[in-house]
Amino acid sequence: MTIRVLALCGGIGGAKLALGLSHILPPDDLAILVNTGDDFEHLGLTISPDVDTVTYTLAGLNNTELGWGLAGESWAFMDQLRKLGGEGWFNLGDRDLALHIERTQRLHAGESLSAITADVAARLGVAPRLLPMSDDPVRTVLDTDEGTLEFQHYFVGRQAQPAVSAIAYRGADTARPNPAALAALADPALEAVIICPSNPWLSIAPLLAMPALRHALEQTAAPVIAISPIVGGKAIKGPTAKLMGELGLPVTAHTVARFYAGLASAYVLDEADSDLADDIKALGLAVDVQPTVMTDLASKTALAGQVLDFAERLRHTRA
Amino acid sequence: MTIRVLALCGGIGGAKLALGLSHILPPDDLAILVNTGDDFEHLGLTISPDVDTVTYTLAGLNNTELGWGLAGESWAFMDQLRKLGGEGWFNLGDRDLALHIERTQRLHAGESLSAITADVAARLGVAPRLLPMSDDPVRTVLDTDEGTLEFQHYFVGRQAQPAVSAIAYRGADTARPNPAALAALADPALEAVIICPSNPWLSIAPLLAMPALRHALEQTAAPVIAISPIVGGKAIKGPTAKLMGELGLPVTAHTVARFYAGLASAYVLDEADSDLADDIKALGLAVDVQPTVMTDLASKTALAGQVLDFAERLRHTRA
Repeated sequence: MTIRVLALCGGIGGAKLALGLSHILPPDDLAILVNTGDDFEHLGLTISPDVDTVTYTLAGLNNTELGWGLAGESWAFMDQLRKLGGEGWFNLGDRDLALHIERTQRLHAGESLSAITADVAARLGVAPRLLPMSDDPVRTVLDTDEGTLEFQHYFVGRQAQPAVSAIAYRGADTARPNPAALAALADPALEAVIICPSNPWLSIAPLLAMPALRHALEQTAAPVIAISPIVGGKAIKGPTAKLMGELGLPVTAHTVARFYAGLASAYVLDEADSDLADDIKALGLAVDVQPTVMTDLASKTALAGQVLDFAERLRHTRA
Repeated sequence: MTIRVLALCGGIGGAKLALGLSHILPPDDLAILVNTGDDFEHLGLTISPDVDTVTYTLAGLNNTELGWGLAGESWAFMDQLRKLGGEGWFNLGDRDLALHIERTQRLHAGESLSAITADVAARLGVAPRLLPMSDDPVRTVLDTDEGTLEFQHYFVGRQAQPAVSAIAYRGADTARPNPAALAALADPALEAVIICPSNPWLSIAPLLAMPALRHALEQTAAPVIAISPIVGGKAIKGPTAKLMGELGLPVTAHTVARFYAGLASAYVLDEADSDLADDIKALGLAVDVQPTVMTDLASKTALAGQVLDFAERLRHTRA
């Protein structure tokens, strides 16, 4: 089982492209390296929101209305928890809860997050490999105008309302990256690294904050292609644009390209931003312009196909 | 808030009489001391089945079809847990799960089981005081023909099928009994101690295995009245009769009276067993014969009323 394509992603936005890739590539060829900086402890449970979103999305079980959790979910647990005076700010569906309880119990019993993730994925019928970025805890923490907030307290608890002045990835400097990802990046058989259109600062940066993973990405022989999460000066979803503004960054696909320059060798830009292509090429990135907005399975597989084609062209150019 | 009636009970059978008592007595007068020997750790959660059964029963939320858990319960969590390969032998309803998660989290945060139980009871509208027998762990463990089994593994996991040769109450010798119960037993204002018709060996013995509680029961000035869980040579519910047979004990109300002799001062016998009254009086117990089978709220309150009347007669006899 040689990994030929390694996708890096966070939750919702990234999972869309990961799903597209999973519909095109043979399962053994694809591995998805998922952000765990959003993970947190809540109600005594260890919750891995991005890993779960990717798992549920690839299993075809995701709740497309909510954008997170399981389709057809029920909420009896939350209703009763609130009656008991429990913490009600983070919704956990009845069915979803099984994963959190099972994972927490197995973590306490000494199993690794990656082993549990692989087992859960297999049981839910997910064929590509899902790789948590690390089995060691990394926690994204934000300095805001309401003080220092852990990611979920900022994102869910406060609905991303506080203004962010700085972001830290606690534990990233010592966390050991997933060894399967490091091995894939060092393997000449790797054909592409795809940085999905997730939030660069919240979903991808935690991975890059691990020195060994960043180094392996810089050294890999495969083309590293980032897909812009910014289209026409706006984020498709989530707090990316608001966050960029707060960090004093222009909300453009060019800013994201600059973020990935030196790491990525190529960049996929939306048609709406084709005027930025030359400026991005000037950063040393090969550029492909495509429709990048994924609204349905067809557009997800179409973009995945375009990115894989781009990777092939890049490999031939180098050869 | 002076406790005037202290009821000792386990789960289902005992909770019926506790409910009857709660419908007659002013809430401040009644405290219910509940077995925690059935408590166990499961899926990383601390579960207190008897405390929960009494809580839900007195809140009017109990599932009368199942005999445990909450009415109108749903099972999405269990369904998903089984899909994930989790332990499926102990059913936990979606709504019920809130209590286990909330309690476990609060225990880990340092709150006592008795404080959590009191808070949950108040939130669910239970007025009488619910007292777990101890905040220290006591675990009922059975020697069986299938080896040593913790209570729930025997009772639920193996449906009480293994033959029991001995029972131990691990931790009971050092566990500190609930101080409110000890105080009530030492208080001259206490008017009755009622040992509900729970399984003597599985539900009441764990309480009596705590030396300080047994001593306080032996020393209390109030009449101690036990209600027979055996009617016409059969147990109303559960494995009591089967267990008595395995322990080499005749399955009669007299055997249970002998178990309580020296501790109880009086005994309530079902009409079906009135022929045993003289033999039981010979054990040194005052005897009252009543219909003891509780099938509905009317029969629960009727029995509760009869037991309280009996207590009053006993007090007058002594005075």
